[in-house]
Amino acid sequence: MSSDIEFKRVASRQNPFLKSLRSRAREAGRAGAPVWLEGVHLCQEYLARVGLPAQAIFAAPMPEQGSAELRALWRACAQAPRVVLEAGLLDTVSDVAGAQGVGFLIELPAAAHGDAVDGDCVVLDRVQDPGNVGSILRTCAAAGVAQVLLTEGSAAVWSGKVLRAAQGAHFSLRLLEGLDREAVLARVRAPLAATTLDGGASLYAQDLTAPVAWCFGHEGQGVDPGLLAAAALRVFVPQVAAVESLNVAAAAAVCLFEQRRQRLARAAA
Amino acid sequence: MSSDIEFKRVASRQNPFLKSLRSRAREAGRAGAPVWLEGVHLCQEYLARVGLPAQAIFAAPMPEQGSAELRALWRACAQAPRVVLEAGLLDTVSDVAGAQGVGFLIELPAAAHGDAVDGDCVVLDRVQDPGNVGSILRTCAAAGVAQVLLTEGSAAVWSGKVLRAAQGAHFSLRLLEGLDREAVLARVRAPLAATTLDGGASLYAQDLTAPVAWCFGHEGQGVDPGLLAAAALRVFVPQVAAVESLNVAAAAAVCLFEQRRQRLARAAA
Repeated sequence: MSSDIEFKRVASRQNPFLKSLRSRAREAGRAGAPVWLEGVHLCQEYLARVGLPAQAIFAAPMPEQGSAELRALWRACAQAPRVVLEAGLLDTVSDVAGAQGVGFLIELPAAAHGDAVDGDCVVLDRVQDPGNVGSILRTCAAAGVAQVLLTEGSAAVWSGKVLRAAQGAHFSLRLLEGLDREAVLARVRAPLAATTLDGGASLYAQDLTAPVAWCFGHEGQGVDPGLLAAAALRVFVPQVAAVESLNVAAAAAVCLFEQRRQRLARAAA
Repeated sequence: MSSDIEFKRVASRQNPFLKSLRSRAREAGRAGAPVWLEGVHLCQEYLARVGLPAQAIFAAPMPEQGSAELRALWRACAQAPRVVLEAGLLDTVSDVAGAQGVGFLIELPAAAHGDAVDGDCVVLDRVQDPGNVGSILRTCAAAGVAQVLLTEGSAAVWSGKVLRAAQGAHFSLRLLEGLDREAVLARVRAPLAATTLDGGASLYAQDLTAPVAWCFGHEGQGVDPGLLAAAALRVFVPQVAAVESLNVAAAAAVCLFEQRRQRLARAAA
């Protein structure tokens, strides 16, 4: 029997493995614990950037009869433990994965929380909306900022909503979550730049060619006063008068790509 | 009896006005029809930027006994028709408005769809996520781009989700929705700049000081090929290799604020 057709089959709703998958899909993963990835795109990204999952879960009928994307994922996981769930069972884990026919269980490496964070990074201070956190992770990966620290009170970075919004950016970033203010300040080496509406300097007046630790804050309250006080730089995005503020993910995109613009210009000079 | 205490009271779940409010809250408003605004912030913004609503709806107990914000809204609407719903009834209209104790019914002016769109504008081509559409409206208002056109298939711009995400930006923008490609091309006067991953030029190599009609496309499929073909300018946001793309709202923020940066620099020169 070739390895290409080796897999486990789950047929019962009461199967303990299926129950554990449901728990993983409900709860956000944490460093050191398994994380549930849903759907074709995230599984493709994981394979491409990290490697084989701890387990690959497919929905019956057999993936060999499914779409080209599912067949490719099935074959790519031939050397990983594969599980096929009988029709309808993946829907009991998650609507998203059920509709797409695939999900991965992955093991997060335990984060080395004590290590310093050198160079560029982003600090998310109690950013609560999973869509905002996911969008900012995607922007970080696109702008070449490879380290993101999240304080307690931010959306759980390995939750399904953040994973879907970030579209695989997680796998090219170093992520540290659950930090308090002191832990952030103890680890970050680059000068802190906090965005604020009060008393800041224009983003466009800053030299952003040296490493920066960007700090973006809570959707309503902004950056924590303690972090703001520790910031070497307070900046605002110059907007037209009478408008309240940008969405935090939009503000992050403007800041990180202004940094990228300046560095591209310096590299070309 | 002073006008300050004149209002209607609704006590029955079967009240026809209450039923009509529920319909308004479920369905997105359209130009020429009433729109339901939920919660303290949107109502404050509407009052500040537009004026009195067609009707102001409050939850019992009396707003005079509520928060300072609710009391201020109650008094500011003394010259508008005010309705007080008995305890719990506003929750049957919407969770959001129910929790915050206030909502407005407003009348949208019928849009002059046939008119030309001169100067800067943004075209949203089938941008589907309400959070993305709302964030882009907010970015437009912040960047000083006051006209937004939406093609059929975009999220309904006057829906509750888009209104909440835009935080009042609607009230400082000219909004035209439900357009097809030909209607967009017939109205827009400025050269069209479409964002694309294939064959575009770097955003940072463009002179963006003259009017631009920015075109941002569907989250998965990008800009419609017909609009792309009509674009005078195809641009990409220069990102690091091996990363798929930015979230559309993040890409819009980068483009519109690069335009703003160039114009501020020119004005200061």
